[in-house]
Amino acid sequence: MTTVALDLLGGDGAPGVVADATATLLAVAEHQGLRLVLVGPVDVARSQLIARGVDPDRVTLLPAPCAVSMDVQPLDVVRTDAQREVAETTVVVAARAVRDGIADAWVSVGHTGASVAAAVLTLGRISGMHKPALAVVVPALARPVVLLDVGATPSASVSALTQFAFAGAAFARAVGVESPAIGLLTIGSESGKGDELRIEADAQLAAELTAAGLNYVGPVEGFDITRGSIAQVIVTDGFTGNVVLKSIEGAAAWSAHRIGQAYGDPGPARGVVRQAASGSFAGGLVLGVDGVTVVGHGAGTAAQVIGCVELAQRAVEQNLIGNVRDALETQT
Amino acid sequence: MTTVALDLLGGDGAPGVVADATATLLAVAEHQGLRLVLVGPVDVARSQLIARGVDPDRVTLLPAPCAVSMDVQPLDVVRTDAQREVAETTVVVAARAVRDGIADAWVSVGHTGASVAAAVLTLGRISGMHKPALAVVVPALARPVVLLDVGATPSASVSALTQFAFAGAAFARAVGVESPAIGLLTIGSESGKGDELRIEADAQLAAELTAAGLNYVGPVEGFDITRGSIAQVIVTDGFTGNVVLKSIEGAAAWSAHRIGQAYGDPGPARGVVRQAASGSFAGGLVLGVDGVTVVGHGAGTAAQVIGCVELAQRAVEQNLIGNVRDALETQT
Repeated sequence: MTTVALDLLGGDGAPGVVADATATLLAVAEHQGLRLVLVGPVDVARSQLIARGVDPDRVTLLPAPCAVSMDVQPLDVVRTDAQREVAETTVVVAARAVRDGIADAWVSVGHTGASVAAAVLTLGRISGMHKPALAVVVPALARPVVLLDVGATPSASVSALTQFAFAGAAFARAVGVESPAIGLLTIGSESGKGDELRIEADAQLAAELTAAGLNYVGPVEGFDITRGSIAQVIVTDGFTGNVVLKSIEGAAAWSAHRIGQAYGDPGPARGVVRQAASGSFAGGLVLGVDGVTVVGHGAGTAAQVIGCVELAQRAVEQNLIGNVRDALETQT
Repeated sequence: MTTVALDLLGGDGAPGVVADATATLLAVAEHQGLRLVLVGPVDVARSQLIARGVDPDRVTLLPAPCAVSMDVQPLDVVRTDAQREVAETTVVVAARAVRDGIADAWVSVGHTGASVAAAVLTLGRISGMHKPALAVVVPALARPVVLLDVGATPSASVSALTQFAFAGAAFARAVGVESPAIGLLTIGSESGKGDELRIEADAQLAAELTAAGLNYVGPVEGFDITRGSIAQVIVTDGFTGNVVLKSIEGAAAWSAHRIGQAYGDPGPARGVVRQAASGSFAGGLVLGVDGVTVVGHGAGTAAQVIGCVELAQRAVEQNLIGNVRDALETQT
């Protein structure tokens, strides 16, 4: 059995959307080897579950009085010990549940920066990875693509990008993408294109990944992310990755709308985009911390929360953290 | 009449694709107030036109022996006077045609960096804009969106982003987007999010645009590019913009494929994406140079080349260069 702690108060639709997801998950949880821990105010959790016809005793309830505010600076989350209200937020309590062995993984669809900070500061870093990366699996045309970082480290150095590449390759294998080709997101596929960071990173990635026996294919472009043919791990800094991921989300919504109009029936078009959005694409895995942490889309639906929990379960079952640790050891 | 010089040798499908576009354009050119100048080897131009049943005398042929190589460093294009073969490439000859008054605008679907360099160094910069920006019109859901820079200046400073905002607003008005709201592309819409460049740029944009009477709406996110509701001018550096534009292109292709499958008939889905790609989205306008320059997609179709020529014609008719110059004067 895999135990996943779920932040009841994370996301725009909380607690209702999270409770909806919990009710749906519980219907099949035992069969799928899943146990749930709901992290939030116990009275809210109980009443939300009862309102959905779910016996609250089927879930472990872990008390946490409040959500982290969207205004909080990420580092305040656990460092400001004086602020008891921050230290007792759902993200910190959920991360602590993993640290203390109460859960195998934790999931929040709330404040990304705060969740990443809670993960780093509560669970600790993995040796060999100095900055965390948020990695998503994009359902590309040829093969799924692991894109990272999509927002944990907005300004990444060359060595951070190199560490992301090793961790991303381990994540790809954990989600079933064997022998991934690894590419660096830049502009133009010729060597020497891009900004200074990319030009320097390209050389270091080529040297270090090749030395470790990994398949580095060099620079890739924006359209390669949803193609999946040239690279199945695409590395970038958290600023670019976040903007790109949201641009892809927007372009898919644009396409669903316009293409649905062209067929005179929007249903199937919306269905395709909704299905992609609630698959492994629904949440990002925080790589570089010592415990499985999934951060989902703040505006997410119940289907997306379920996608996040399934991703967390899969990462535990595939021993993701161990694989990432091994990959980073190969590097050094 | 507007005269557009077209690079016969630019792009992966040259010269055939450019000749196809020329033949199609000539059928309606006079009616639409368009004159064409074809820039390339005269014998190639003649034989390509004759093969399409077009009388070569209907087009002005401007001799240029060869295309710029994809390997060339942008600054070599016109600076290395010793290299006659570079100084006589189609992009330089086309830009010179605009400088010398032979044409009102020029278009290439070849090497973006070389085209931008040829424009800057042949036509000169507009006062008040220190770095060029490539601007595209994205056919967003609510209203069209001008996105810039998409690749002319990969590493942009705060002052460059500010100049892009002024120029982008002038471009938006020239393509019919009145009173555009202007946003800064970043991660998270709260102030203070993003990397250092964005945090600093947000403050300067707010001060300078507001002082000039423009409508600055602050930080916007990736999905706002194809929504068009919050901002109609979206400013970013050339690295991010190029990656984002190509990511949107890839996501639209992904959507057309998957959604087309869902309906069991890919035709209409492909048609929507193809139509968007060959509209104003087909090419970027180089802002900050003293002459209308449109750079199109290297892998473009004849329809996309036509889209680029139409964009160039529109920019001339709307006095884009004058508008950009006026906008930058407002700034100082």
